[in-house]
Amino acid sequence: MAVGLEVLKHYHPVNGVNIGIAQAGIKYENRNDLVIFELAEGSRVSGVFTLNAFCAAPVQVAKKHLAEGNIRYLVINTGNANAGTGPQGLADALESCTQLAYLTKVQAQQILPFSTGVIGEPLPMDKLLSTLPKALGALTDNAWVTAAEGIMTTDTLPKGYSQQVALTTAGTEQASSQDMINISGISKGAGMIMPNMATMLAYLTTDAVIAQPLLDSMCKELADKSFNRVTVDGDTSTNDSCILVATAKADMEEISSAQDPRYAALFSALLDAFTVLSHAIVRDGEGATKFVTINVEQAASVQEALDVAYTVAHSPLVKTALFACDANWGRILAAVGRAGVKDMVLENIDIYLDDVCIVKNGGRAASYREEAGAAIFAQAEITINIRLGRGDISERVWTTDLSHDYVSINADYRS
Amino acid sequence: MAVGLEVLKHYHPVNGVNIGIAQAGIKYENRNDLVIFELAEGSRVSGVFTLNAFCAAPVQVAKKHLAEGNIRYLVINTGNANAGTGPQGLADALESCTQLAYLTKVQAQQILPFSTGVIGEPLPMDKLLSTLPKALGALTDNAWVTAAEGIMTTDTLPKGYSQQVALTTAGTEQASSQDMINISGISKGAGMIMPNMATMLAYLTTDAVIAQPLLDSMCKELADKSFNRVTVDGDTSTNDSCILVATAKADMEEISSAQDPRYAALFSALLDAFTVLSHAIVRDGEGATKFVTINVEQAASVQEALDVAYTVAHSPLVKTALFACDANWGRILAAVGRAGVKDMVLENIDIYLDDVCIVKNGGRAASYREEAGAAIFAQAEITINIRLGRGDISERVWTTDLSHDYVSINADYRS
Repeated sequence: MAVGLEVLKHYHPVNGVNIGIAQAGIKYENRNDLVIFELAEGSRVSGVFTLNAFCAAPVQVAKKHLAEGNIRYLVINTGNANAGTGPQGLADALESCTQLAYLTKVQAQQILPFSTGVIGEPLPMDKLLSTLPKALGALTDNAWVTAAEGIMTTDTLPKGYSQQVALTTAGTEQASSQDMINISGISKGAGMIMPNMATMLAYLTTDAVIAQPLLDSMCKELADKSFNRVTVDGDTSTNDSCILVATAKADMEEISSAQDPRYAALFSALLDAFTVLSHAIVRDGEGATKFVTINVEQAASVQEALDVAYTVAHSPLVKTALFACDANWGRILAAVGRAGVKDMVLENIDIYLDDVCIVKNGGRAASYREEAGAAIFAQAEITINIRLGRGDISERVWTTDLSHDYVSINADYRS
Repeated sequence: MAVGLEVLKHYHPVNGVNIGIAQAGIKYENRNDLVIFELAEGSRVSGVFTLNAFCAAPVQVAKKHLAEGNIRYLVINTGNANAGTGPQGLADALESCTQLAYLTKVQAQQILPFSTGVIGEPLPMDKLLSTLPKALGALTDNAWVTAAEGIMTTDTLPKGYSQQVALTTAGTEQASSQDMINISGISKGAGMIMPNMATMLAYLTTDAVIAQPLLDSMCKELADKSFNRVTVDGDTSTNDSCILVATAKADMEEISSAQDPRYAALFSALLDAFTVLSHAIVRDGEGATKFVTINVEQAASVQEALDVAYTVAHSPLVKTALFACDANWGRILAAVGRAGVKDMVLENIDIYLDDVCIVKNGGRAASYREEAGAAIFAQAEITINIRLGRGDISERVWTTDLSHDYVSINADYRS
């Protein structure tokens, strides 16, 4: 039951990106489970990966290859995560790259491998390797819809984003035709459903011409504002990966620094893509009936703002109250109080549900009426605004409620 | 559905402790909701309180009075937490002490107030104050069974502990008759059910003669090994309090330091009381079908051991797997990996379910058979042993599973 998630039917092709899809039968027959991205020579590629100390074999290989630069292919399989597979798993991830490199006449280190699916089982290499030629044969610039479906595991809906954007120059609102760029991307994940069928994956591409160092810093900053701010249950997978590609095929001068007058428009456009694709994962979170923004304001530091936001977002009591449409301000306030922020003063805390003040100076707001809170908690999309009265730092995270279906999905999976 | 929780029918009176109970009708009629402990002159009292930054009015007053020493009465009401009640709440908590002090001819600061129940509503002072004489009139040394029931809120069962203990001298196994002490105590709580009906309260008493400074350090150490190591859902209440009383009425020489040859036996006896009363809260956790010990060994520090233990204990994926009796080692391993421990090496991790090795060197143990794990996960009591291979520090925490009933209890409460 995805919350406010629409399926994208039309994508803008991104000059320099071709996608080929095939059925390898890795876990299920008659299902697209192998996706190859071909990137034009000269593409710049950046990525962020799981912070889980135990990252899967393909993540280890992808990080290493990415550091060497000049990436030309991404190869993604679903049905098997190649995680918890030891030295053989590492050899398998490398072999996928070696074989694809042989077929495409590039070097193995120019290929990034990704896997998602069951952990602890060996990757069926025969099936995977024998299907590479078929996926390569299918390469086209217009396979985004099928690709979004091809990387799904327990997702209930495919997740995509596509926009054509004019990079206006700051202060002018003008853009020459050379500054038109395409941005298209896909993501998968429904929370850390389980290590058996886990992983958030995201592939964002643009034909914009962005210098590699700037792309790297942008990718990290964009992920920190999006994929690193969404949480369903606090669990993070061993395979999480987010890749940003700039093929440099658009007809424009290179953007190499944040001082470039087009930078603000570029950042804003990419942030929109990152935001939509990361929120889609929350909207499709297991058992989700609500899409919830936790917005912490007036913090003294980023860390304390995030500590408060995540403590509220992960509180089972807050999450069950959201599921029950019960505007229980005591649960929110108690979660704020246990976030571990030093010298927090109750009397300085205000809490708003959307724009309705529910807590004022640490107590129930005199103006608050139960009906107003209930009306907001009945909505599918809710913003909880928490003002700490300590400074001027703001952070926000996005999450879901905790429903009976969450327990069912996660408790009944292997039964 | 409490897990392995037995109701205690007989308590040993503790010399110097009388308990009086009455019905004040604070929230419900015909229910004991006011409990007074009378402590003999010369009693030493220590306590630990919630770390939630927003502690309730009675906690603020109790902390202040406790610091002044010479405590003679504890007054506990259920039905109303006097939390989130601002300056009036503080005045009400103080007034309870003042009135009780007037009736008993002690000073107001010799009284510790405690409240548990609904938050955000004013304490019905008329009802509370007018019932104090009745509770005082009922004072007796044999009201423990009724007291354990009188402090319950959403608990399904009363929680008590009582033992007579001979303080043997280390190395001798001998105890003179003077070294016999009584320990009796009660606790309440079923996890942080909700701020509306929250709070873990515990009152442990002994007639042992223990010097105040030693009692203070023991109380903290004992709570750290028990009440501060149990968690149902990670939420902590605004009213949590744990009080340790030593009335000094036993016929024995004072124990004033850990070097006393009787100290080990005293500590061990009190630890048993703290352990049983804290575990009782987990066993009665909302919707609990399992009592789970998370035991982390071979850590490099206490902090990292606790980080791993709590990350596993709070993981909704691990908790739903426990509910489903699914020995899903991948979920446990992934939780270990995201605990934020620096430079953790997957290949050094071993995990045992009770004494069955399920993960060896970071992968599924070759000897592991699914039936063996399933048999253990079918038990009502399970120990998950996690060995990090980094050092020689161990820590353990106790928790429950996450069941449909947890969601129901917490989502349906106000509906």
